[in-house]
Amino acid sequence: MSCMFCAIVAGEAPAIRVYDDDGYLAILDIRPFTRGHTLVVPKRHTVDLTDTAPETLADMVAIGQRIAKAARSTELADATNIALNDGPAAFQTVLHIHLHVLPRRNGDKLSVAKGMLLRRDPDRESTAQILREALARIDAGR
Amino acid sequence: MSCMFCAIVAGEAPAIRVYDDDGYLAILDIRPFTRGHTLVVPKRHTVDLTDTAPETLADMVAIGQRIAKAARSTELADATNIALNDGPAAFQTVLHIHLHVLPRRNGDKLSVAKGMLLRRDPDRESTAQILREALARIDAGR
Repeated sequence: MSCMFCAIVAGEAPAIRVYDDDGYLAILDIRPFTRGHTLVVPKRHTVDLTDTAPETLADMVAIGQRIAKAARSTELADATNIALNDGPAAFQTVLHIHLHVLPRRNGDKLSVAKGMLLRRDPDRESTAQILREALARIDAGR
Repeated sequence: MSCMFCAIVAGEAPAIRVYDDDGYLAILDIRPFTRGHTLVVPKRHTVDLTDTAPETLADMVAIGQRIAKAARSTELADATNIALNDGPAAFQTVLHIHLHVLPRRNGDKLSVAKGMLLRRDPDRESTAQILREALARIDAGR
């Protein structure tokens, strides 16, 4: 299977899952800019904004919003960047559309710059656990 | 009026409009990273992802997608970045939610870096005209 995200959706490649429903997955970026850097991925393969239905984009952003709120309810984030890189010239590296959710903290400019160079999280499983628990709290309205 | 975007919506502050409907405006960023850098702004004031309805976000992204497609159909863009800065720690400077649409061109890394420092477009009216015409063509299905 040539698409990395289709392989993850099919269970044929590993990923740390933050969220999973019938149509969408959210997984930790393997090379995170910041701790909790998450990708929202539709299970059905499309490439970018030119071939993705507005309804799919709306679902992706709604899930991204929930993850952003969840992150902001934990020590991971005071704020978030939500970003979609539409095309290789805009730094899209996996040609299966995905939305970035980037947890940000007050005064983290230098650590984000460092994170862009290092791009690693020494404890991804516990990071995912924090996000999953925060999502569950938000969905429960707490 | 203390909110710059509410003042623009009310017609009390100037802006170069790319798109306008009952609920939303798209305007050129006054300090563009790249030529055609556009902001999608809901007319009703909310601050960020914590207080904005998912339906509003979905509308903003659908309009952003149309502007991205329009830009990609012109000389302004081969690709786009779509971004939402959710909170001051994530570089949100106007506390009225807005979506950035950033036209990108092949091999423009250096000119984007330069654009982030200079942040100006010497001919904003003609840039807006290119985008408005491209949107009209896309809406006409051409």
